[in-house]
Amino acid sequence: MSAGPLRVGVVGLGRLGKRHAENLAYRVSGAALVAACSPVEAERTWARDALPAPRVYDDYHALLGDRDVDAVWLVTPSALHAQQIIDALRAGKHVFCEKPLSLDLAECERVIEEARRYPQLQATIGFMRRFDPSYRNAFEKIEAGAIGRPFMVRSQTCDQNDPEGFFVRFAPTSGGIFLDCTVHDIDVARWLLGMPKAKRVYASGVVALHEGLREFGDVDNGVAICEFEGGRIAMFYASRTLAHGNDTGSEVIGTAGALYVGRNPRANRVEIADASGIRNECTPTFFDRFEEAFLCEARAFVAAVREGRQSGATLADAMEATRIGFALRESLASGRAVDL
Amino acid sequence: MSAGPLRVGVVGLGRLGKRHAENLAYRVSGAALVAACSPVEAERTWARDALPAPRVYDDYHALLGDRDVDAVWLVTPSALHAQQIIDALRAGKHVFCEKPLSLDLAECERVIEEARRYPQLQATIGFMRRFDPSYRNAFEKIEAGAIGRPFMVRSQTCDQNDPEGFFVRFAPTSGGIFLDCTVHDIDVARWLLGMPKAKRVYASGVVALHEGLREFGDVDNGVAICEFEGGRIAMFYASRTLAHGNDTGSEVIGTAGALYVGRNPRANRVEIADASGIRNECTPTFFDRFEEAFLCEARAFVAAVREGRQSGATLADAMEATRIGFALRESLASGRAVDL
Amino acid sequence: MSAGPLRVGVVGLGRLGKRHAENLAYRVSGAALVAACSPVEAERTWARDALPAPRVYDDYHALLGDRDVDAVWLVTPSALHAQQIIDALRAGKHVFCEKPLSLDLAECERVIEEARRYPQLQATIGFMRRFDPSYRNAFEKIEAGAIGRPFMVRSQTCDQNDPEGFFVRFAPTSGGIFLDCTVHDIDVARWLLGMPKAKRVYASGVVALHEGLREFGDVDNGVAICEFEGGRIAMFYASRTLAHGNDTGSEVIGTAGALYVGRNPRANRVEIADASGIRNECTPTFFDRFEEAFLCEARAFVAAVREGRQSGATLADAMEATRIGFALRESLASGRAVDL
Amino acid sequence: MSAGPLRVGVVGLGRLGKRHAENLAYRVSGAALVAACSPVEAERTWARDALPAPRVYDDYHALLGDRDVDAVWLVTPSALHAQQIIDALRAGKHVFCEKPLSLDLAECERVIEEARRYPQLQATIGFMRRFDPSYRNAFEKIEAGAIGRPFMVRSQTCDQNDPEGFFVRFAPTSGGIFLDCTVHDIDVARWLLGMPKAKRVYASGVVALHEGLREFGDVDNGVAICEFEGGRIAMFYASRTLAHGNDTGSEVIGTAGALYVGRNPRANRVEIADASGIRNECTPTFFDRFEEAFLCEARAFVAAVREGRQSGATLADAMEATRIGFALRESLASGRAVDL
Repeated sequence: MSAGPLRVGVVGLGRLGKRHAENLAYRVSGAALVAACSPVEAERTWARDALPAPRVYDDYHALLGDRDVDAVWLVTPSALHAQQIIDALRAGKHVFCEKPLSLDLAECERVIEEARRYPQLQATIGFMRRFDPSYRNAFEKIEAGAIGRPFMVRSQTCDQNDPEGFFVRFAPTSGGIFLDCTVHDIDVARWLLGMPKAKRVYASGVVALHEGLREFGDVDNGVAICEFEGGRIAMFYASRTLAHGNDTGSEVIGTAGALYVGRNPRANRVEIADASGIRNECTPTFFDRFEEAFLCEARAFVAAVREGRQSGATLADAMEATRIGFALRESLASGRAVDL
Repeated sequence: MSAGPLRVGVVGLGRLGKRHAENLAYRVSGAALVAACSPVEAERTWARDALPAPRVYDDYHALLGDRDVDAVWLVTPSALHAQQIIDALRAGKHVFCEKPLSLDLAECERVIEEARRYPQLQATIGFMRRFDPSYRNAFEKIEAGAIGRPFMVRSQTCDQNDPEGFFVRFAPTSGGIFLDCTVHDIDVARWLLGMPKAKRVYASGVVALHEGLREFGDVDNGVAICEFEGGRIAMFYASRTLAHGNDTGSEVIGTAGALYVGRNPRANRVEIADASGIRNECTPTFFDRFEEAFLCEARAFVAAVREGRQSGATLADAMEATRIGFALRESLASGRAVDL
Repeated sequence: MSAGPLRVGVVGLGRLGKRHAENLAYRVSGAALVAACSPVEAERTWARDALPAPRVYDDYHALLGDRDVDAVWLVTPSALHAQQIIDALRAGKHVFCEKPLSLDLAECERVIEEARRYPQLQATIGFMRRFDPSYRNAFEKIEAGAIGRPFMVRSQTCDQNDPEGFFVRFAPTSGGIFLDCTVHDIDVARWLLGMPKAKRVYASGVVALHEGLREFGDVDNGVAICEFEGGRIAMFYASRTLAHGNDTGSEVIGTAGALYVGRNPRANRVEIADASGIRNECTPTFFDRFEEAFLCEARAFVAAVREGRQSGATLADAMEATRIGFALRESLASGRAVDL
Repeated sequence: MSAGPLRVGVVGLGRLGKRHAENLAYRVSGAALVAACSPVEAERTWARDALPAPRVYDDYHALLGDRDVDAVWLVTPSALHAQQIIDALRAGKHVFCEKPLSLDLAECERVIEEARRYPQLQATIGFMRRFDPSYRNAFEKIEAGAIGRPFMVRSQTCDQNDPEGFFVRFAPTSGGIFLDCTVHDIDVARWLLGMPKAKRVYASGVVALHEGLREFGDVDNGVAICEFEGGRIAMFYASRTLAHGNDTGSEVIGTAGALYVGRNPRANRVEIADASGIRNECTPTFFDRFEEAFLCEARAFVAAVREGRQSGATLADAMEATRIGFALRESLASGRAVDL
């Protein structure tokens, strides 16, 4: 690695893409945002205005041909991820890609196989919770033995209800609540429990508010149990309908103690005492909750590339989370436990 | 009902029996503890010393023959409950009986059938959480519509680890973790969700510390999902191995909000700030956590008898909780979902 | 002391008097409520209906003549306390008296002098916080060295605002906010700091809502600093105008840690998550907050009489709290520090 | 203002200076760190290594002569602040200066007078709490009327004990605990109470651990009351000896509610449940607590300069905080209330 900064090209400039672009442009030391790509004219205009003079592309392959780009940062629609990763690796670029790797297991395998040919290139899937300072603190405490042997994770990904049910429109392609939301919790459980192999899952769920999900076999509140080898187990909860905000957190139980991450999704350090009691406001969205995690994730990727080591979730991790997510979806549909 | 107090005979004077006896003797207005029964000499001596001059029996049927006893309060081994309830009803006594009604469903039905013949007699199974002031407050908030339509309950019964594993000795007769612990959560879920009918369950679990449980097919940490009709669902967790105390609580999620009961099992109103951070101590046992619930439960029973109405969990409620508990046990053993 | 219960006569049956009467009648083992006294007809009727057949008096001296009364429990207007205590002692009765001992220091001294002649009689002033389980737990932790040497107490007595300003009517006789409210915090500070001698105080305050207090030189929000000998110090806050409930608590800071009692005046173990955030409701009044303290206080008094030892705040403690309270009032009026 | 970034020169590269320098170099969009100045060789070396190629000076006046510097950022010893601000203004530079403006009131006035001659130049004193997101949120809630009319602030600045008592060495020049620590709380109180004029103060304190402070008339735990005009009041607490961390927070009480900022100085979103109870770790230092505030402060300064408006605490605010701090020190020394 040269002494200069890692030159990154961001691909996809939607809401999350913009955040990644700004982080890489202004807040990640060791990185330089040199290129941005979007098929949307307005997004390219934004890139020209808000970012420090990157080259702006409307075509992914043009960006891949830019020799000044060391790494691509994919914040594109899920269906494109697999091929875009492969193309990036073939073009000699490191790849950071938002989750999921793919909603097709065969495709996941294809990407993994291809990546094996480029051991010198970093390819990471963005499970940003691994970089959230609180999750990381919990992970380090577990490593240090603070709770003995961890054997259970309870983890949830719960969004504040969107009365307009925007996400219902994505139901046909999202893969369903378990592949869209719980996949984060699956990765967290595996990571905090020492990467055990999953044995069996069971899932269930209800439609509490968004009737439009029924035609896609999806639910707006899902629950699941995942059994791992070695006497380890996880419980998951995903919701699209919470009243109080984005309430995303995890609990790890060990033989000598337990850790909670984010048990109260407090928005800040303010408490309000009034006639309704004493309260704190909550983080409205995962953007608010994980603002720092996205930044730390970017810093970690850049550092890892520069130091020639893996950081964050590997392609194999992403595939395993997807595999478990698929089994959850199958269990939800069948009402039966699914062996893995 | 006469204007005088309800005259109660306590049967069984183990740890929990003693607490019930003291509550009824000294803290429940409208009740008089007039009799106590135990086959254990030391417990009868305790009754003579600590209680206000009750008649002390070593034989249950002798107590049933005492015409000054209006109601019996059964705190006896589970295997005796069913027949003792039947005998009490036949002797014309109201009955309060600690959970479970029975670990045999046919026996449950036999008791219910018998009880139908004595509509003037109260027969209640002691699911004391319904009387805990915080649970009751949550119930009333739900009734008042505070969280919209409740559709999910997450509930747990978790004991502090007993390094000597005392409960392992009871594994042969306890019915297993779901019938011993989760049965409370099942009742809470039914109660807070509006008494829906269960459709299907799935359960799993691990032995984290107490290997001796394996030979009985039991676990020291169990998890479960229970699906009810009408788009309602429950998740359960039971543990024998927590480090921090008895951590028993519930969460109810509705379409317009959620309620937590006992999310932090704080022992009292004290917080300690020292080099380890800021902490509260936890309730060590369910006795500490539910001290007030046991008392409120006794008061409610006495009031209900005097007013000629049902209070607390009926025999049918207890049977339904047992039925679901059995299905959880079956699921744990088979690794399959069980339809009800 | 005979083996029988302590026979108590309650004097004064207002709101707090009724609570004491019920506690002594039904919830304090070792006590028998045998007499009740009130000049108010309606209160005597209540006593006949709600209590277990006590003798009911309309005249205090008639109750003092009742030879079956071992102890009197004074819940009468403050101005009567001193003389009633003296009369009770002269009649050979133990005395429990609600705070304050007196708002006249010379009168305090007179009572203390009189009490010295009856060393066999218990005379206690009702600073109930010393019996609140959480305060007691904090005290025991301090005794056990949990926070090193305690050197600072911050303590507050804050009522929910009464829009009708009922207490304004009592302003002429209450002694002002420091003698009415802060006197509890003064006792707590002395108790938790090892009974140091006060050296100097400074007080200030504002009228936030209840303008009617101005004519009495009183405030509805008062603050104060009290310096003790030996490098110990206290800060006090008293309010009549909080929006969220009765918020009464204390903090003790030591050289190795700190303890908080009641930092969040949570009403129960319920938390509510809704669009306003996550909140707990608060204890509306000191009755709700200190329900258990009043009961423990009564139990402790009865046990102390039966065991022939002092329990709770002595007359001297009460006088010292009053003396400091007077100095605070003087400081508020003068805007100057007052040396003691 | 040109369209380019604000070109900043940082002066003083101690621990806090380094943080400011890094923020300005890498995290503040709209700013460019173009110069750094320190008389310490090691610090200049750090600047060359860690910062993006600034011009590095060992002499302040040389930096002032650099025409590419638009603004200076003073993180120098307190005694230098006043003259350095004056020199910067005379050199045509905007000035950000860490608190305090000066520990000499005449000098404060001299700076203010000089600054009046340069109305086009921004001069701000770094009371960073005004930029902490939680403090700002509280401020906005107050502005929006969430707590009615605010009339009381309780605010504290408390450091974790440094067993080596490093700060004792600074006692001769720090101005004492009130001018060093409480000055922040004074500014917070003024800001949250609507900039009222102070009328009278009283202060007291103890030496809990650091006996070395006595010779300078300083304490390691100080308390104070500050009365403002218009029926507003503040209580302050400052400590150098807490066991659990940096515990810095404030409470604002209004006629319709109260706000707490930072009531529990939690380090992150992790809670630990083990045999000692349930706890969170605390922010060890004000660096950890106010990391984001320092950054927001820098962004706000840059934005304000570019928009030609004042942001943050003015020189007059700083002088007023110092004036109150002096009165507190005088009160501590004399044991008397001090009128302002």
